Amino acid sequence: MKNIKYLLILMALTVLPVSAIAAENIQDIRISLDSIWVVIGGILVFFMQAGFALVESGSVRSKNTINVLMKNYMDACLGGLVFWLVGFGLMFGVNASGWIGTSHFAPDELDDWYWNLLFFQIMFAATATTIASGAMAERIHFVAYVVSAIVVSGVIYPVFGSWAWGSIFDGEGWLKAKGFIDFAGSTVVHSIGGWVALAGILVLGPRLGRFGRNGQSHYLAGHNLPLVALGGFILWLAWFGFNAASTIRADVSVGRIALNTHLSACAAAATYMLYALIRSRAILMRTTINASLGGLVAITAGCATMTPVFAVVSGAVAGLIVSIVPAVLEKFKVDDVVDAVTVHGVCGAWGTLAAGLFFEKNMFSMEIVSVQAIGVAMAFVWGFGVAFMVFKLLDLMPGGIRVSSQHEQRGLDYTEHAELSYPEFQRDVTFETDDLTRRH
Amino acid sequence: MKNIKYLLILMALTVLPVSAIAAENIQDIRISLDSIWVVIGGILVFFMQAGFALVESGSVRSKNTINVLMKNYMDACLGGLVFWLVGFGLMFGVNASGWIGTSHFAPDELDDWYWNLLFFQIMFAATATTIASGAMAERIHFVAYVVSAIVVSGVIYPVFGSWAWGSIFDGEGWLKAKGFIDFAGSTVVHSIGGWVALAGILVLGPRLGRFGRNGQSHYLAGHNLPLVALGGFILWLAWFGFNAASTIRADVSVGRIALNTHLSACAAAATYMLYALIRSRAILMRTTINASLGGLVAITAGCATMTPVFAVVSGAVAGLIVSIVPAVLEKFKVDDVVDAVTVHGVCGAWGTLAAGLFFEKNMFSMEIVSVQAIGVAMAFVWGFGVAFMVFKLLDLMPGGIRVSSQHEQRGLDYTEHAELSYPEFQRDVTFETDDLTRRH
Amino acid sequence: MKNIKYLLILMALTVLPVSAIAAENIQDIRISLDSIWVVIGGILVFFMQAGFALVESGSVRSKNTINVLMKNYMDACLGGLVFWLVGFGLMFGVNASGWIGTSHFAPDELDDWYWNLLFFQIMFAATATTIASGAMAERIHFVAYVVSAIVVSGVIYPVFGSWAWGSIFDGEGWLKAKGFIDFAGSTVVHSIGGWVALAGILVLGPRLGRFGRNGQSHYLAGHNLPLVALGGFILWLAWFGFNAASTIRADVSVGRIALNTHLSACAAAATYMLYALIRSRAILMRTTINASLGGLVAITAGCATMTPVFAVVSGAVAGLIVSIVPAVLEKFKVDDVVDAVTVHGVCGAWGTLAAGLFFEKNMFSMEIVSVQAIGVAMAFVWGFGVAFMVFKLLDLMPGGIRVSSQHEQRGLDYTEHAELSYPEFQRDVTFETDDLTRRH
Repeated sequence: MKNIKYLLILMALTVLPVSAIAAENIQDIRISLDSIWVVIGGILVFFMQAGFALVESGSVRSKNTINVLMKNYMDACLGGLVFWLVGFGLMFGVNASGWIGTSHFAPDELDDWYWNLLFFQIMFAATATTIASGAMAERIHFVAYVVSAIVVSGVIYPVFGSWAWGSIFDGEGWLKAKGFIDFAGSTVVHSIGGWVALAGILVLGPRLGRFGRNGQSHYLAGHNLPLVALGGFILWLAWFGFNAASTIRADVSVGRIALNTHLSACAAAATYMLYALIRSRAILMRTTINASLGGLVAITAGCATMTPVFAVVSGAVAGLIVSIVPAVLEKFKVDDVVDAVTVHGVCGAWGTLAAGLFFEKNMFSMEIVSVQAIGVAMAFVWGFGVAFMVFKLLDLMPGGIRVSSQHEQRGLDYTEHAELSYPEFQRDVTFETDDLTRRH
Repeated sequence: MKNIKYLLILMALTVLPVSAIAAENIQDIRISLDSIWVVIGGILVFFMQAGFALVESGSVRSKNTINVLMKNYMDACLGGLVFWLVGFGLMFGVNASGWIGTSHFAPDELDDWYWNLLFFQIMFAATATTIASGAMAERIHFVAYVVSAIVVSGVIYPVFGSWAWGSIFDGEGWLKAKGFIDFAGSTVVHSIGGWVALAGILVLGPRLGRFGRNGQSHYLAGHNLPLVALGGFILWLAWFGFNAASTIRADVSVGRIALNTHLSACAAAATYMLYALIRSRAILMRTTINASLGGLVAITAGCATMTPVFAVVSGAVAGLIVSIVPAVLEKFKVDDVVDAVTVHGVCGAWGTLAAGLFFEKNMFSMEIVSVQAIGVAMAFVWGFGVAFMVFKLLDLMPGGIRVSSQHEQRGLDYTEHAELSYPEFQRDVTFETDDLTRRH
Repeated sequence: MKNIKYLLILMALTVLPVSAIAAENIQDIRISLDSIWVVIGGILVFFMQAGFALVESGSVRSKNTINVLMKNYMDACLGGLVFWLVGFGLMFGVNASGWIGTSHFAPDELDDWYWNLLFFQIMFAATATTIASGAMAERIHFVAYVVSAIVVSGVIYPVFGSWAWGSIFDGEGWLKAKGFIDFAGSTVVHSIGGWVALAGILVLGPRLGRFGRNGQSHYLAGHNLPLVALGGFILWLAWFGFNAASTIRADVSVGRIALNTHLSACAAAATYMLYALIRSRAILMRTTINASLGGLVAITAGCATMTPVFAVVSGAVAGLIVSIVPAVLEKFKVDDVVDAVTVHGVCGAWGTLAAGLFFEKNMFSMEIVSVQAIGVAMAFVWGFGVAFMVFKLLDLMPGGIRVSSQHEQRGLDYTEHAELSYPEFQRDVTFETDDLTRRH
């Protein structure tokens, strides 16, 4: 009997602590694993800025290249600071009313885990913000744009976000409480960005020469299509982080999310290709890329809650949207340089509805779809409405929101930044002395 | 004694469950960890498409830039759909005969873990497919190319893959059963891609102006070498995912795999540089980059089973191959725009042999090497043979596989896509009305 | 009593092994997790080469594009080989004296874990090396540059590294022993690279035409600013791996490190923008990007040991440095093509001091700051001193370190590599027969 006793004591001394240590280690490993996954996701989402910068700069004329690059670069910089200062608190802070977060502004001390979330989310804010930059290219004042970007990162995006995703501390956004499905942000990020873009281009009006006196439209060709293609690849790459890391937890489910993301983009581009072949049109590269981006936007809401077949369907419809809608907007003389309204706004709306329609646990439920529709509508009302007021206000400032015709003709690189994007190859453009002296 | 009894009961109630929970959690963490590793690998391999797109588009004349970019973009899109529809089943489905998989087509329901594998593998298929796009640049009909790409993603690549890597469900490929070593695909992916490229360029013939009447060769310089360099960096980056995530398991071994990958690429480029210095030739950038890619291809088969010294040797030999073979092919009037046959086909074959020769557990075993040689030979027979028939068949279709001389001279961007890559800088080229009307 | 005995035996047979297995599995998972994290970090740091290549090639005139790209490409290749051969041993090998590592050269057999470290560190060496390539662009002999790069990767960087970070085997670097804080290398990597660059450009002298007879300076505009912007984004992206994976352990702390990294870069660019607005200067894109890079350099030392507020402060000061210092250097006729001395050297020094000043556990301790200052000073003495001697020695070799004026005017792409970066668009440049024959 003695030896049993000793064995027991031995076990009490070894087994129990081993289990306790094991449990502690397991917790440590789990949070470490989730941390690197979320941070890797954030790193990838950061790279979206480069993708947007390339798609947009390749799509404008060379005289406005630096200007659009700078808009993207400053979106990352100012968006980062502003979201840290106020956006994070508005979006994810304690949300008693369901309509706005009210704590955790400019956080300097947080439990370790939350820094990972903040890092991930700061990149989402910059993405939402930068969507509008391409649409409004070639005619907006740089400083006016920068102010609008601060408002998007700091107010428009996070307030809507607090409805759908808040709070991570206490309280619940009203849309989230209704069961609104927007896994990674078809509406929260992309539609919001798209509707801000629409507001901006309506206030700005079309570029000089975009529409003729008799209403005919002129295509103003982008100056560097390899940049557009590379930007498309980079956005696609980054989207895997955007969607798969929105689990906020390393999980066996990430594979299907990534696959759905991929298949939707593939199906969208293939659909546009078929559409062009059937209609005997040239298969345009920019539209192909936009179609795949539309597919990515569309799958963002539902990538975690539908099967691959429906990811393909979601993408195919997005491909059709991108094939058709830009020509409709053009008829209304909406001059969207990169078709951001279609790709992000309309495809985001479609994707949010699709996430409801194809929700695998309860497909084609009108109850679910109607909540989705409410979210889609509210995003338009809030995103377009507030942005329209902001751009109108900016337009009332001295100088207005739009550069002078002279500056627009000369190009914003020269007039706003005193630089040229390709000084050796843009032989028609010459610096004047007064511009050079602005450099130092 | 009583207290011992209670202690025992207490332990039975606490220790056992704690251990059980721990075991369950450990399993959950392990599969989560492996999932994110495989997905991150797939994300990196996806980025190879961008790398190929840049290397290839920078290596052609500007009038064919959009065309080659579009081929890469559609390889990702159609390759993704087709591999999901049929390729995955052919390659990894139940493989009773050892010669072909016969289940899991268009999978819509799978155990969670398999989605990760499918996501990873879908990117490999697109890589194998896109290798040929650069070799055949500047002269192939876009739609003919697209059809051939579908065949590669859907049949040529997965059937060979089923021999060497299948099945993940039941049954075993015949090459795998023999002990064929091809860790990440020197043969399965790269040689197959290279031999498809060879078949394509033999059916197509060389570009206009590539070889003179008296047999002398003319170098048709690529239009944008920074794109080539960036493409090289991106491919190299992506290769770390290609090789290190082919463990399909997060593992302490990934470091040496990544290091071997890196050292082989380094050694290959350094070898070419020495070769050029010794022969008093200019150190060409495109060849330097191709050498490093050859080193990456060569280490792909054996990166997990050789020590770093032999990774350096494998790479150095690949560097020599890239220094010498293209000039030989040129003598036979093989017009390979990006030297894909050398880099992927020949270096892939060398790397597969090297994986046998330098197999660390049994070096220089002729038994192992002879199995490797069988795999290398079968890849050529299957990859070149089937692709040659496909391209010949496509050539018999109305219009043929090759564009008209007029279109080739004018450039495929204009004639096939009605777009220009750099409209402001390509001043010799002007749109004609009939081409413009094809746009809408 | 019997049943208790059996129960005990059962538990001894089941519980103990389960716990043992659990413990073993936990260890395996921990090392697997850390391995992939470090490898992912290394992959990201590798991508820095592409970032530097783009920033630098876009900042030179088109006639020197290939040359600077090749320098970056060969830095990765030769740096990789040389660091494996000797650098790793010098830096991390057994370090009895505290001044140099003396084991583990050309490692071919290591415990598995160390390969991960070597892979990660090999990328740091290449980064330190390539910093100088841009500063010295447009006038240095390619082969002379390559030799200097070998010395940096193989001696200058690893020897200093052994003081601050060595050893991982046995012994401790003397700076490390003093408590020097340089988490990811503001000094070890960036200042060292910056001071090497300073030595190089002092030996080389300014480019032809950079300064006029009467001392006035002429701006030699970079030829392709979109490349610069993309390079900036890529460097920023890669920096997250550089800093966050320098934990060498997957950890919940990575989020704050990544966030600090981001906020510092944001604050630096925003500070430059404010500076330009206040001084009514144009907001230059290249300076904006350099400011953000300065912010990244500055936060590298202290990203793990300060709170976000101080990350913002660190970045803001770096932004000011980048706004002011280049003009000062210009007055001294220091011709730094990409402002590498400011961005990496000066901001690295500032960041190392900031890591001491804002060390969260003991802020504004002069004891800590003085150790930091010693490290900063020693980096200058060693990095600048040795590099200056190396460049002077190279200059004494036949041919010297600098290309002839004729070659400089014609451009190094043509004279050193017999290639053109954009042959269709550089219409003023024509190949001569003797150059073409150097190709094959």
